[in-house]
Amino acid sequence: MNIRSVFFILGKIILLVGLLMLVPVAVALIYREAIWLTYLAVAASTIAIGAICSQLKKKKLTIRAREGIAIAGLVWMLVSFFGALPFYISGEIPSLVDAVFETVSGFTTTGSTILSDIEALSHASLFWRSFTHWIGGMGVLVLGLAILPGDDTQSMHIMRAEVPGPTVGKLVSRIRVTARLLYIIYISLTLLEAVFLLIGGMPLYDSIVTSLATAGTGGFAIKNASIAAYDSAYIDAVITAFMLIFSVNFTLYYMILLGQLKTAIRSEELRWFFGIVVAATVLITINVLPLYSGIFEALRYSSFQVASIISTCGFITANYDLWPTFSQAVLLLLMFIGGCAGSTGGGIKVYRVVVICKTAFANVRRQLFPRSVAPLKHEGKLLDDDIKNGITGYMFTYIAIAAVSVLIISLDNVSFAESFTAMVACLNNIGPGLGKIGAVGNFGDLSILSKIVLIFDMLAGRLEFFPMLAMFYPATWKKG
Amino acid sequence: MNIRSVFFILGKIILLVGLLMLVPVAVALIYREAIWLTYLAVAASTIAIGAICSQLKKKKLTIRAREGIAIAGLVWMLVSFFGALPFYISGEIPSLVDAVFETVSGFTTTGSTILSDIEALSHASLFWRSFTHWIGGMGVLVLGLAILPGDDTQSMHIMRAEVPGPTVGKLVSRIRVTARLLYIIYISLTLLEAVFLLIGGMPLYDSIVTSLATAGTGGFAIKNASIAAYDSAYIDAVITAFMLIFSVNFTLYYMILLGQLKTAIRSEELRWFFGIVVAATVLITINVLPLYSGIFEALRYSSFQVASIISTCGFITANYDLWPTFSQAVLLLLMFIGGCAGSTGGGIKVYRVVVICKTAFANVRRQLFPRSVAPLKHEGKLLDDDIKNGITGYMFTYIAIAAVSVLIISLDNVSFAESFTAMVACLNNIGPGLGKIGAVGNFGDLSILSKIVLIFDMLAGRLEFFPMLAMFYPATWKKG
Repeated sequence: MNIRSVFFILGKIILLVGLLMLVPVAVALIYREAIWLTYLAVAASTIAIGAICSQLKKKKLTIRAREGIAIAGLVWMLVSFFGALPFYISGEIPSLVDAVFETVSGFTTTGSTILSDIEALSHASLFWRSFTHWIGGMGVLVLGLAILPGDDTQSMHIMRAEVPGPTVGKLVSRIRVTARLLYIIYISLTLLEAVFLLIGGMPLYDSIVTSLATAGTGGFAIKNASIAAYDSAYIDAVITAFMLIFSVNFTLYYMILLGQLKTAIRSEELRWFFGIVVAATVLITINVLPLYSGIFEALRYSSFQVASIISTCGFITANYDLWPTFSQAVLLLLMFIGGCAGSTGGGIKVYRVVVICKTAFANVRRQLFPRSVAPLKHEGKLLDDDIKNGITGYMFTYIAIAAVSVLIISLDNVSFAESFTAMVACLNNIGPGLGKIGAVGNFGDLSILSKIVLIFDMLAGRLEFFPMLAMFYPATWKKG
Repeated sequence: MNIRSVFFILGKIILLVGLLMLVPVAVALIYREAIWLTYLAVAASTIAIGAICSQLKKKKLTIRAREGIAIAGLVWMLVSFFGALPFYISGEIPSLVDAVFETVSGFTTTGSTILSDIEALSHASLFWRSFTHWIGGMGVLVLGLAILPGDDTQSMHIMRAEVPGPTVGKLVSRIRVTARLLYIIYISLTLLEAVFLLIGGMPLYDSIVTSLATAGTGGFAIKNASIAAYDSAYIDAVITAFMLIFSVNFTLYYMILLGQLKTAIRSEELRWFFGIVVAATVLITINVLPLYSGIFEALRYSSFQVASIISTCGFITANYDLWPTFSQAVLLLLMFIGGCAGSTGGGIKVYRVVVICKTAFANVRRQLFPRSVAPLKHEGKLLDDDIKNGITGYMFTYIAIAAVSVLIISLDNVSFAESFTAMVACLNNIGPGLGKIGAVGNFGDLSILSKIVLIFDMLAGRLEFFPMLAMFYPATWKKG
């Protein structure tokens, strides 16, 4: 690994996050909260450290696959640490592990919280929490690529390590232009949601913060009762729609901008995604109908929860822990699926799930007719061995990390459903699980060991494993 | 599919199972139980039906992959149906679905029961229950190959559909000789266990029946308290040892008979298997130590339960539902792993788990150094694409069946842990799950729909999916 090149990029990104931390300073000043000084001090230190690191540049920058992966792993850990300092120093979250948990949950767009009284936080901190969702959703490295100068081939390795999904779809030939386009679409959609929420009577501050959390499919709310606090069918509908919008591959929005609406709609992944959403909503609506006053109410709550879980956002309007086991099982299945590749949603991604289903189906055929070779296709193209091997490697790594995580969390002696869904909620970047860590619970009571495992899971899930695993892989650190 | 050839083999096997059903007739006569007549009548009808079917032979037998798979699926369903008739007709199990569930659980060596009072059954039926374990363990088709005349290349397709594991290891060049050898080793080891149990003071009947259930790694006991009823450390130790012995690839015993002890011990799968057993036993012993009077007692119960679960036998000496969640999580992990390929144990098999772990590890390396190609090896040999694709197909099919099963079972509104572990216990052919269907519970209270799903899961798990899935695949039934 070329340490100097890694330090150079790390420094630039840390500096960038330090600058972004000036936004909560402004929020604190608007609301005349004393915490502005804490945010300013942390922002200044972060900017200073970033500036020093980025001075370590050699003449020639060397970014290969291993440097790209190491940068992704290190950036996300460092940024989470710096991001946690205001919570810890201000005393709003007195434990450092808890503060880091909350910040990692923010940047990774998980939305699991260790707080039992969210409303006790300052406006500045509530804003920062949701702002981390927004920054982490599209990716802090992608943001860096969008606004910092640099070389395209090398940037590819950085982008590949951070963008979710089995392939990085290059929108245009130049990667920096791609990163900029992604952010322009991202900002526009976020603003659009805020406007729709404002129209529904949500206060300005709430609209902005909720939009930031929706856009990153994060799920941190600013009320203890999450979105249920507003109790408005209109607001529920707007957020349901935008949670789904942010789970769609952003490439499709670019296509629509170019007037290729037909091509965008033909996307196989998109059709599967909406097929799954509709099927799950119908099943749950029927299943929970007896609990609600009518089909409209049942549809309102079930569609919101389906969108919230499959997008891995994690907002809550109904305590689904009281729903029948079947509805919970459907939601649990959606937790694993997650959003589309190239969106801000987490989980295994619809793309991979579709390929997995196709492989399983093709395999039955192959057993029956060993000599007939029917090649697998997706999005009209043949699936090459690289993509298939990548998905297999991803799934097997997923299973291994999931198994070890559940084992360690179960040392807490919580119920099996709780230790299992805590892992699922964090590894897929969703937020709430079932039971004590469910819709109305939080992660505060878990042991420090479990929290550290879940911090790892959130980061590993967001970066699709390899950058976090590479941290433990000696070859990553070998010079050269 | 060549229907006549399929019918011919079906007939032979059904006839064979009819003959085997004469053994419980003898048991009933020895204990002067009136049920002998029921068993005789069912045996006679089964023999008659088998004889008629096997008259349908064409001049030339055509057994390709699809006929082999269809035969495996059909034989196991038919044999389970005929095997269930004595329970149903005698009224010992008044519901037909329950009787079929119990028999499928027997033949597939699962050992899940719908009975709450096992001891109320006649000696003949208790014998038949455990005898189905023994027949199903090594496989009814393999038995047919061992004793019926036929052609070797065609037999391969039948054997491949029934023998567990990613590859059928041919012991010797002739497949019928292989089948015979397997059964000779199987019978010898079963008798050996019975002798050891007799020495420990277990009654003759109990020794034989328990050995049959251990050999198939089935787990049906003849006492309500399972093996705990004997409350003997010696008996626990003997059964622990034999559960492990029957989870080892039988090819290794053949090697030992040939004097190739060193080669057998070098088996990579064997070392992983015992490594996992030792690690799990140590972890659970430490975890449950406070519950027992000393380290010896903790070791006795934890080693028994580890062996029972990883072998997918499912005998019980301790109510592990009262153990800490960590120990339950370790057991749950073992449920997925299962025995070695080519043993009577169920589950995913150690072979596949090892390849999965190696793939996951290699994939991290591949991400870091995309240009370095480090080929995967197992048992000293390169893993070819066929085996890797087979394992991927198996795992993805496993995940799909598991997800759909849990969804349907959860309609019963049992807890998530129960619907999840019911699926795990049946799909991996283990027996008990957690909670209401756990160590001291049974499957009797589930709905008929759940029972049918679990019957499918047990058969699918035992036959490694494809024969059961092929039943729903229209191309299987196409003539030609």
